[in-house]
Amino acid sequence: MRVASASYSITMRVTLERASLIAEVSSAVNSANGLVTALDVSEPVEGKMVIDVTCNALGEEHAESLREAVNTLAGANVIALSDRTFLMHLGGTIAVQPKVALKTRDDLSMAYTPGVARISSAIAKDVTLARKLTIKRNTVAVVTDGSAVLGLGNIGPEAALPVMEGKALLFKRFADIDAWPVCLATQDVDEIVRIVECLAPVYGGINLEDIAAPRCFEIEQRLRERLDIPVFHDDQHGTAVVVYAALRNALRVVGKDLANVRVALLGVGAAGVAIARLLLKEGVGDLVGCNRQGILDPDDVTLDEDRRWLAHHSNREARRGDIGTALEGADIFIGVSGSNLVSEAQIAAMAKDSIVFALANPDPEIDPALARRHAAIVATGRSDEPNQINNVLAFPGIFRGLLDVGATRVTEDVEIAAARAIADAVSPEDLSAEYIVPTVFNPHVVHAVASAVARVASGGER
Amino acid sequence: MRVASASYSITMRVTLERASLIAEVSSAVNSANGLVTALDVSEPVEGKMVIDVTCNALGEEHAESLREAVNTLAGANVIALSDRTFLMHLGGTIAVQPKVALKTRDDLSMAYTPGVARISSAIAKDVTLARKLTIKRNTVAVVTDGSAVLGLGNIGPEAALPVMEGKALLFKRFADIDAWPVCLATQDVDEIVRIVECLAPVYGGINLEDIAAPRCFEIEQRLRERLDIPVFHDDQHGTAVVVYAALRNALRVVGKDLANVRVALLGVGAAGVAIARLLLKEGVGDLVGCNRQGILDPDDVTLDEDRRWLAHHSNREARRGDIGTALEGADIFIGVSGSNLVSEAQIAAMAKDSIVFALANPDPEIDPALARRHAAIVATGRSDEPNQINNVLAFPGIFRGLLDVGATRVTEDVEIAAARAIADAVSPEDLSAEYIVPTVFNPHVVHAVASAVARVASGGER
Repeated sequence: MRVASASYSITMRVTLERASLIAEVSSAVNSANGLVTALDVSEPVEGKMVIDVTCNALGEEHAESLREAVNTLAGANVIALSDRTFLMHLGGTIAVQPKVALKTRDDLSMAYTPGVARISSAIAKDVTLARKLTIKRNTVAVVTDGSAVLGLGNIGPEAALPVMEGKALLFKRFADIDAWPVCLATQDVDEIVRIVECLAPVYGGINLEDIAAPRCFEIEQRLRERLDIPVFHDDQHGTAVVVYAALRNALRVVGKDLANVRVALLGVGAAGVAIARLLLKEGVGDLVGCNRQGILDPDDVTLDEDRRWLAHHSNREARRGDIGTALEGADIFIGVSGSNLVSEAQIAAMAKDSIVFALANPDPEIDPALARRHAAIVATGRSDEPNQINNVLAFPGIFRGLLDVGATRVTEDVEIAAARAIADAVSPEDLSAEYIVPTVFNPHVVHAVASAVARVASGGER
Repeated sequence: MRVASASYSITMRVTLERASLIAEVSSAVNSANGLVTALDVSEPVEGKMVIDVTCNALGEEHAESLREAVNTLAGANVIALSDRTFLMHLGGTIAVQPKVALKTRDDLSMAYTPGVARISSAIAKDVTLARKLTIKRNTVAVVTDGSAVLGLGNIGPEAALPVMEGKALLFKRFADIDAWPVCLATQDVDEIVRIVECLAPVYGGINLEDIAAPRCFEIEQRLRERLDIPVFHDDQHGTAVVVYAALRNALRVVGKDLANVRVALLGVGAAGVAIARLLLKEGVGDLVGCNRQGILDPDDVTLDEDRRWLAHHSNREARRGDIGTALEGADIFIGVSGSNLVSEAQIAAMAKDSIVFALANPDPEIDPALARRHAAIVATGRSDEPNQINNVLAFPGIFRGLLDVGATRVTEDVEIAAARAIADAVSPEDLSAEYIVPTVFNPHVVHAVASAVARVASGGER
């Protein structure tokens, strides 16, 4: 069931014949299943009272029905309806900010010519100084080709830009990192690799984002070979890190050990393959990977390199069949696929004290309310459910740690250190079936992750 | 003669045995040709007084001699010396700034998922909405390959970065434009063109910067053909616009008409060719282009396309020889070459009421003091001389105007409109031989240029 949320939030400007109508407006909106979140009284116009009613809606049609609900009231008239999300994105959500004032000629002569020539000369003599004397110390490129944007698919670089701006906002908000959108008008692997390689001098790290599988694997691998800055595909590794963090705590709650559990994984795209790699590296008992056609078959010649690797390194019992077969007796379900692909009966057939991570967005693989009837722990990607698996817990701290030590690469050890730090941000006293990961606004997470990452990235113990 | 300027400015921390030494320190620095610009008293350390002396110096050696001058004083001891320009550039000079607050889950759900999906969907349906709903409305890429940075030459993309950051600062300071450095690790024309083409979705304009000639001409031309946003090589057109603006006013002062004057142009690189094109388009009487080998010869088969065009479209009297020959009887000298390439005698041989623009940086083609003995008007690129020809007068307003109307290209008409607006920012009452261009801090220039450009770029009269 969908709930009216701030992601679709509108403001109606309403004229009222009399003040007493305010309460009626509010009640009309609520009766029509809108949720009034703010009500501001403006200046009267031509003797009529004017109010701004801000409320959450389910979508465009619902917003229209809220408008009608108010208009139906005698003496009330909606004179404008604006969509707050669109208002927020007008002109974009990030800007460039000067870190130095340019008030006088002296300022100009130090920030720009002729003074800047000495900075440039110093870097020309010793290129490592770029990390000290330029923005490279704190910058991350958020790179996409617009091919797999959110759940929207291949919508192109312009349409991907608001998402990359949002990502840059998160980098700044959670880790004080200066991230900049790079939305490429090409989906050719060779071109993307070469372009990012040529852009790298300005950046201390590369965050690949919303690039379709299997292209994303090759792009990441080739960039990692060529660049001396960390390259991190968040859809793969950010997700894997948070899933593993949540899984560590979930296993603590149910008292099982990673080495003795079997995982049924539905979805072997970018996120699924990365989750599988990390869990296998950490010694998971067994893992069975499925896509919508069923359990991956190591003899299937149509599989690409990464999925074939997965098929060969998992499913010890050589199960054949669909996700239902994979789920029989499994301890853990991890879904990174699509909505409603798993039935209640399939969840019921899992082992005792089962763990269900149904992460498809916005609608999970199974309604969490149904899953909770059978599973000990349920997590989703949704912010309106307990146990939200959200990449924001991982990527800001990971890049903060990498930038802080001037790291040249990101390793699986870094990812594992980050996952452990996220998991440990939930104290043993607080840990429960409904609280296996910290909330995104927990201010300690980014610092804990950053220090753990910095320690490992600079060669220390994880 | 070089003058100590803020572009090389140091701060010395000095301990003093007694307070009365303050005056002696200041006087010692000034006697050693330093210029004390600030003197701050800090907390006493171990009973000794501590002061911070900030002063301008000529360079590294001079800074050391200032340190010694202070150390020589009995009872004074320099305990630290820091270079203020390096301090200013630590960690770079620009950052990314959020335009929206992310305080609550509701904020997150509008700025990022799930709300942002609606913004992306809207743009996917109508790509022109990117100019409304993303940063594209106000962004400019400052693109370089690091091949011709300031007077430093081919120093590479990392060393170019502080300059591009400075340029972004100027864009923000003077026109509230969000400019971002793109320093490319390639100097291949095809690659640069293709990369910028692929980066374009994020930007409303492209500012090419410090790319060596003749490569810069081809890159600009090809990008202009391919992109639907304005592409402007500032070293060419920004310089040409300001030179033409200054020249219009200089001609007003000496009472000559552009159609009747002859220009001797020394330097036919990026700036020189662009200046020539603009003046020829505006109907200059004649123009003779020279490089260090002498006057351009239309029969010289080694000339590239742009210089051959210039050789064929100028020098009506078919003069042959060096810059001295070009200057004989010329009304105007424009130098965009190197220091001290023109003699006093050559300037003396120009026509009556001659105009000399000696723009090589940091040292002009001829000492302006010598030029002033013979010329009616002298302009340079220096901030410590009257009549500074500075691109900052042009590019911020030009891009502001182009972005304001969502322009898809920049034309010679736009450049001419900008030049006229800059020239007209000096009122007839103020106009004099020493004041032919407004100062860079004149707050009216950017608005005047932006409105003139917006008018022309949107199809109006210039």
